[in-house]
Amino acid sequence: MELIKNAIGRLVPTEINGEKQIPYQGVGIYKPDGVKQAPRISSNSDFPVDGNKTVASIKEALIKAGIKDGMTISTHHHFRDGDLIANQVFDIAKELGIKNLRWFPSASFPCHTHLLKYLEDGTINRIEGSMNGALGKFCSEGKMKGTAVLRSHGGRYQAVQDGDVKIDIAVIGAGCADSFGNANGLYGKSASGLLGFALADSEYADKVIVVTDNMVPFPCIPWQIQGNYVDYTVVTDKIGIPEKIVSGTTQITKSPDRLLLAELTAKFCDITGIIKDGFSFQTGAGGTSLSVSLYFKEIMEKRGIKARFARGGSNKYLVEMLEKGLIDYILDGQTFDLEGVRSMAENKNHVWTSPFTSYNYHSKGNFAGMVDVVILGATEVDVNFNGNVVTHSDGYLLHGIGGWQNCLFSKTVILPIPLFRDRIPVIRDEVTTICGPGELIDVIVTERGIAINPLRTDLIEKVKNSGLPIKTIQELKEEAEKICGKPEKINFGEEVVAVIKWVDGTLIDSVRKVI
Amino acid sequence: MELIKNAIGRLVPTEINGEKQIPYQGVGIYKPDGVKQAPRISSNSDFPVDGNKTVASIKEALIKAGIKDGMTISTHHHFRDGDLIANQVFDIAKELGIKNLRWFPSASFPCHTHLLKYLEDGTINRIEGSMNGALGKFCSEGKMKGTAVLRSHGGRYQAVQDGDVKIDIAVIGAGCADSFGNANGLYGKSASGLLGFALADSEYADKVIVVTDNMVPFPCIPWQIQGNYVDYTVVTDKIGIPEKIVSGTTQITKSPDRLLLAELTAKFCDITGIIKDGFSFQTGAGGTSLSVSLYFKEIMEKRGIKARFARGGSNKYLVEMLEKGLIDYILDGQTFDLEGVRSMAENKNHVWTSPFTSYNYHSKGNFAGMVDVVILGATEVDVNFNGNVVTHSDGYLLHGIGGWQNCLFSKTVILPIPLFRDRIPVIRDEVTTICGPGELIDVIVTERGIAINPLRTDLIEKVKNSGLPIKTIQELKEEAEKICGKPEKINFGEEVVAVIKWVDGTLIDSVRKVI
Repeated sequence: MELIKNAIGRLVPTEINGEKQIPYQGVGIYKPDGVKQAPRISSNSDFPVDGNKTVASIKEALIKAGIKDGMTISTHHHFRDGDLIANQVFDIAKELGIKNLRWFPSASFPCHTHLLKYLEDGTINRIEGSMNGALGKFCSEGKMKGTAVLRSHGGRYQAVQDGDVKIDIAVIGAGCADSFGNANGLYGKSASGLLGFALADSEYADKVIVVTDNMVPFPCIPWQIQGNYVDYTVVTDKIGIPEKIVSGTTQITKSPDRLLLAELTAKFCDITGIIKDGFSFQTGAGGTSLSVSLYFKEIMEKRGIKARFARGGSNKYLVEMLEKGLIDYILDGQTFDLEGVRSMAENKNHVWTSPFTSYNYHSKGNFAGMVDVVILGATEVDVNFNGNVVTHSDGYLLHGIGGWQNCLFSKTVILPIPLFRDRIPVIRDEVTTICGPGELIDVIVTERGIAINPLRTDLIEKVKNSGLPIKTIQELKEEAEKICGKPEKINFGEEVVAVIKWVDGTLIDSVRKVI
Repeated sequence: MELIKNAIGRLVPTEINGEKQIPYQGVGIYKPDGVKQAPRISSNSDFPVDGNKTVASIKEALIKAGIKDGMTISTHHHFRDGDLIANQVFDIAKELGIKNLRWFPSASFPCHTHLLKYLEDGTINRIEGSMNGALGKFCSEGKMKGTAVLRSHGGRYQAVQDGDVKIDIAVIGAGCADSFGNANGLYGKSASGLLGFALADSEYADKVIVVTDNMVPFPCIPWQIQGNYVDYTVVTDKIGIPEKIVSGTTQITKSPDRLLLAELTAKFCDITGIIKDGFSFQTGAGGTSLSVSLYFKEIMEKRGIKARFARGGSNKYLVEMLEKGLIDYILDGQTFDLEGVRSMAENKNHVWTSPFTSYNYHSKGNFAGMVDVVILGATEVDVNFNGNVVTHSDGYLLHGIGGWQNCLFSKTVILPIPLFRDRIPVIRDEVTTICGPGELIDVIVTERGIAINPLRTDLIEKVKNSGLPIKTIQELKEEAEKICGKPEKINFGEEVVAVIKWVDGTLIDSVRKVI
C-alpha cells in the first residue's frame, strides 16, 4: 500500500480496496469536476400495474434483486441497537453462499456484533461505515479482509451521489410502508421517527427493498422514502426492538463535572452573544449536550429569546422547547426518544431532514453552515484544535463519525470535553486520528478552562473581562499532563486498517492496526 | 424531414431539431436501456457559507447563471394565467441580445402571448411544452423556427430525468422562499399551492434560480423545492397575479347536456361497482369533471362509502369531501382554488405530489396505475377509442397534454364528452392527432349513450340489464354524423410543426402545418 502525506500532514493510501483515492487538500480546496452517479432508467412496464410490489420474504427479495458475490449491500441505522434487519440480510447471504460483500450501513451498533462471523468467513469483505465496539476492535486488530472506510453522514450521501460508492441492493426497514414502497418511520411498533439516512440509498441503489412490520393501504403518508424508487416490498413480523430503537427516556448527566462543562458552554454562548433572538443551535443526545440545551432553555426563557430553529437529533427536551414556542422549528435528522417520534408525526414545525439537505458537501450549500452554534464531542483534541472522534487514545477504532465532520461548518463549533478520561489526557500534542481540521473547531470547553481557537479573534475579543476562565489550549494540555503525566505512544503496526474520509471524499487520515 | 410509420400507424419524424427520435412502439414495449441524466457535482465551497444566495434581480441571476445563445430555459405553470416570470425572463434575454433559446415550460397560458414577438425575432427558437391559444396557432401556421415538442406532465419529468432534455437554467417562481432557495407555494400573495411541476427542473437543471415576492427567514417550511439544488435566489415585488393563479371560485357546469354527461358517468361508476369503500378517483377541474365529483359525493354519502384517496387538481369540492371524511387523502398535483391552497397548508392528509411520484413512466411504477377511475376530457375520440387532446378538428394545436396521457394508466379511464361541439362530431373515424392509444381508454360517455371499449369485457358484463344506454362507438359516431353530417377533411401541409411524445419519450404522432 503506497502512502502519501496529505495537506494536514497525515499519511494516507493512494489506493484502497482497488480504488484510487484523493488525499485531503484542505477545507474547500478539492473541487469535484465530474457528474453525479446516474442510476439505470427503469420502466413502469417492468413493475406491477397495480403498484403492489410485495414479495414473500427478505430472502425472496434479495434473490429477485440478484444478490451475488462482491455486491454492495446497504442498510440504515434508524433502528439503532434495535435493528433486526442487517443481521438477517447477511444470514441469508451466508445461507445462499454469497461471498465478499461490502456492507455499507449508515452506522453500525453493538447488535451487529452478530456479523463478526461473516467478516471472518468471507461473507462480508469489509464494512464501510462506523464500527462501534466489537466490530471496531476486529477492524483495529487487522482482521477485516478489506480496508474499512469511515465517512460522515454527509460524506456517505456525497459518496453515493458522486458514484464513489455504487449500492447494488439497499434494504430499508420502515416502521410504516405501503405495498408500493412508500415508507416512513413515524408509525407502528417499530417507529423510528424518520428514514433520512436511507434517502441516498433509495435514490441511487440499483435495487431497493423496503421491509416493514406495519403495512398500510396505499398511500403511506408521508412518504419519507418514495415508492417510485422501490423494487420490492416485504412484510415481516418484526423489524426492530422498539425499546432499543427509541429509548423512551433520555438521560441528563448527573456528573458534576459534565454539568459544569454544560453550564460553562451555555455561559460562553450567552456572553458572546451567540444566544440571541432568532439564533439556531444543534446540541446532540449525549448527557453533556442535553444539559447544554437545558441551560440554553433557561437563558432563553430568562431573556425572552426565541430560536429560529434547532437541529435534532431530537428528544423530549427539544420537543418541549418547540411546544413552548421557544423554538420555531426543529430540523431533525434522527429522533432519540418517543417524544421525538410523536412530535414529528404531529407537528409540522418538527421537520424531517436528510443528510442531503443537512450535510452533503457536494451540493449547492447545506444546512450546517446556517447553524449559529453546534455543541459536539470528541475523543481527543490536539493543540492545533484538530479533533478525533473515531479512535480512542489506545488506538482502537471504536466510534463512527456521524454528523460530526459536517457540523464543523456551523458558525461556531464548541467542544465541551473533560480534560482527561480514565487519567488519559484528552488534549494532546497530536490526535491519534484527525477527523476534523482545527481551523473549523472554535472553542474547547473543559472543567478547568476554555480555550478559544486563535483564528476566532472575534470571540476572544468578546470574552475579554467576562470572568470566563479563558486559557490557551497549550495551558489546558499542560494542566492535564501535570495531573495524568505525559501520555505514552501507542504501538501501531504499519498496516492501514481503515481510512477516514473528509466531507468531500478525500482522505484526511488513516487508522493503523493496533499491535 | 424523414418520416416513418409508428406502431399506431402514424407518420413521425426520425429526427427533430437535430435530435434522433424513436417512433412509438406500443404500450409498454419500448424499454429504455441507458442511465439517468447526471447533473454536474457541485461543491459547497462555491456557495455562500451563510447560505444566502440572494442576488439583486432576475437579470443578475440570469447573467450569473451564464445565459447564452441556444440554451434551454425552463419555467413552471403553477401560476397559470397569472404568471409574471416567464415573460420577464425572455424580456431580459431579448435585452441581452440572446438568441435561439428553447423555452421548456411545464405549460403555457394566454398570458404568454407576449412571447410571440420573441418567437418571431429569434430570441426563442421553439417551445417544448403545451401551447394554448395564440402560441398554438402560431405554431400550427408553421411560423415557429424549431419544431415544437409536446409532452405529458409525466413525460416532461421523464425527458428531464432521462437526459432527453438538458435544462441549462430553471427559473422557479415561488409564493414563499428563503434566501437559501428552499421554497413552497403555500404562503404569500402569490401562493399557488405547490411547486411539483418544477421538481425535475430543480433536480436536474445546471443552474436553478428561485424567484419570490415573499422571502422568509431560513428555514422556509415545507421545502417543496430544496434549496440544496438552488444557485441563486431573487426577491421581486410581484411574481404573479393572485386572482389568475387561483381563481377563488370553481364553476360547476350549468349546461344540462354536461350535467347529463356527469350524471351518466357517476351512474356508470356506481353500477359497475367502481364506487366502493376504499376506492380512488381523479376527476379534474373542468365543469363536467367537477360535476362528476359532486355526483360521486352524493353516491358515497348515500351508501356510507369512503374513498381512500382522490387525485387532485384540488378544488373546494374535493377539500370539502376531505374535511367531511369522505376521502382519507387528497394526492394533489396542483391546486385550482384558494380552498385547495388553504387545505394543503393546513391538512397533512392533503398531500402535495409531483410528476415524479404520480406520472413518471420511467420509474419503478407511479401513482396513476393505482387510481381506480379517472375522468378525462378529449377534443376527439375515434372508433378505435384513440383519443386526441391537443388539436381541434380544424387541425389547430390549441391545448397541451397535461397529465392526460399519464392518467390513461389508471384502472378505468372514462371520457365524458359531447357527441358534437359546434356541430362538429367529436367521435371520428380517425382522430386528427393521436395522443393516447385506444387500448387504454375504456369508456366514452356521451349525452346519447355510453360506449365501452370491447377490450373491457368485464365492464360490458357488469352493465348488462343495467338500463344504462350502452351503444357501440360506431353507433355513437353514426348518430353524430346523422345530425352534423360527415366531417370534412382538413387541409394540412406536409410540414411537421410539432410532435407528440408518448409517456416513454417515443413519438406517437405529428402535427402538420395548417394551410
